Amino acid sequence: MGSFTVRALPGIPEIGPGDDLPAIVAAALARERTPHGAILALAHTAVSKAEGAIVDLDAVSPGERAIELAREQDKDPRLVQVVLDESVELLRAERGVLIARTRHGFVCANAGVDVSNAGRAERAILLPRDPDSSARAIRAALGEDPPAVLVTDSFGRAWRHGQLDVAIGLAGLQPLDDWRGRTDSEGLELRATWLAVADAVAAAADLARAKDSGEPAVLVEGLPHLVGAADGPGARSLLRPRDEDLFL
Amino acid sequence: MGSFTVRALPGIPEIGPGDDLPAIVAAALARERTPHGAILALAHTAVSKAEGAIVDLDAVSPGERAIELAREQDKDPRLVQVVLDESVELLRAERGVLIARTRHGFVCANAGVDVSNAGRAERAILLPRDPDSSARAIRAALGEDPPAVLVTDSFGRAWRHGQLDVAIGLAGLQPLDDWRGRTDSEGLELRATWLAVADAVAAAADLARAKDSGEPAVLVEGLPHLVGAADGPGARSLLRPRDEDLFL
Repeated sequence: MGSFTVRALPGIPEIGPGDDLPAIVAAALARERTPHGAILALAHTAVSKAEGAIVDLDAVSPGERAIELAREQDKDPRLVQVVLDESVELLRAERGVLIARTRHGFVCANAGVDVSNAGRAERAILLPRDPDSSARAIRAALGEDPPAVLVTDSFGRAWRHGQLDVAIGLAGLQPLDDWRGRTDSEGLELRATWLAVADAVAAAADLARAKDSGEPAVLVEGLPHLVGAADGPGARSLLRPRDEDLFL
Repeated sequence: MGSFTVRALPGIPEIGPGDDLPAIVAAALARERTPHGAILALAHTAVSKAEGAIVDLDAVSPGERAIELAREQDKDPRLVQVVLDESVELLRAERGVLIARTRHGFVCANAGVDVSNAGRAERAILLPRDPDSSARAIRAALGEDPPAVLVTDSFGRAWRHGQLDVAIGLAGLQPLDDWRGRTDSEGLELRATWLAVADAVAAAADLARAKDSGEPAVLVEGLPHLVGAADGPGARSLLRPRDEDLFL
């Protein structure tokens, strides 16, 4: 252990539908010297835009439920329809906020649908269809000994204010570091033994990114023990089934 | 923005009751060159031990409720009594896990009570009485232009597996970075606008610490925009009141 660095990766232009994001990331990385076991964190909006996971709100016809929810919550009914389309379950609708479980299983505001960074206000950016698959596709383009790839989004959470970036897609980065059954330097049982390291890396990466900068990519260097040659189980393995969730 | 580094701070010995932790941290820091606006993250166990927030389990007489809960959850009744003593509300008791709201207002497993790192298995380490106050006291000992001080613990969370380090005490570090009402580089509204930056720094710091290393202190350098001369509102301001919580 000891030390690691987190820095924004320059040279990624504004991404649009159809852009070859893996090639663009590979070109930006080729200008850097990245050590073995680096991690590349990408804000999901860049991935979503490249994949065309964008909905033109003018083309959306909101249904009855969306219209009613939009009226209750003082929201754009077209946006509400997009959120419902992205959700398998609407958990809360209060104070203008919709908390939903997405088709991937993530629980977040607006099912992860974003109206910022879209190039125009009339477009909604969705989460990537399969962010683990997106991460694997980008990593596959990054040459020999590629960095791990981490696709992130900012989620609110229970019990505490504010949002934290979390991992929604992963290739080559360990999602959880399992110390269960192991002991500390004094030979005693550890209380915190199942560390959400991919989410910690996501949170760290966001600190290197100015929220208004448009910089989607961040490099984390110095944590090679969390990076593997295999792509691994992905961010899906971070989802806690509701019936196992004691924090609700 | 751009770049920051995270590294374990060497030279902190095993801490025991009555140790002058502010002086010990100051001495370790004096051997480093820390830039303006650094952040010192400390695992709470070091703070708790120095403050004597330790309970000898042999001296605990569990009451009826603790004995019953311990039987149901297959736990040590003395430890359960300590957890109840630290709690204002027991939220869940299932599968051997107690989720409680502590007297500070934190929601976490075992009310933050730890049986690891105690020097002996028969002792429980509590959270510091007032971690914001502990952070301020340590910072006050760190000379002119001191780093911000962050006291951390590892908490599980709703919806997602694993634990993340969060801020339980703060001096000089901004808890939340508020971008509400501001727009991104394209002039559009941001969805994630209230960033839990202190928790992100806590999560980042834990990545530089081997869980079994006994290293309690980590330095984060390169985020001076999050650090202020004033100690600020503390980690208490990260607590979300239950009636405002849409994630439950």
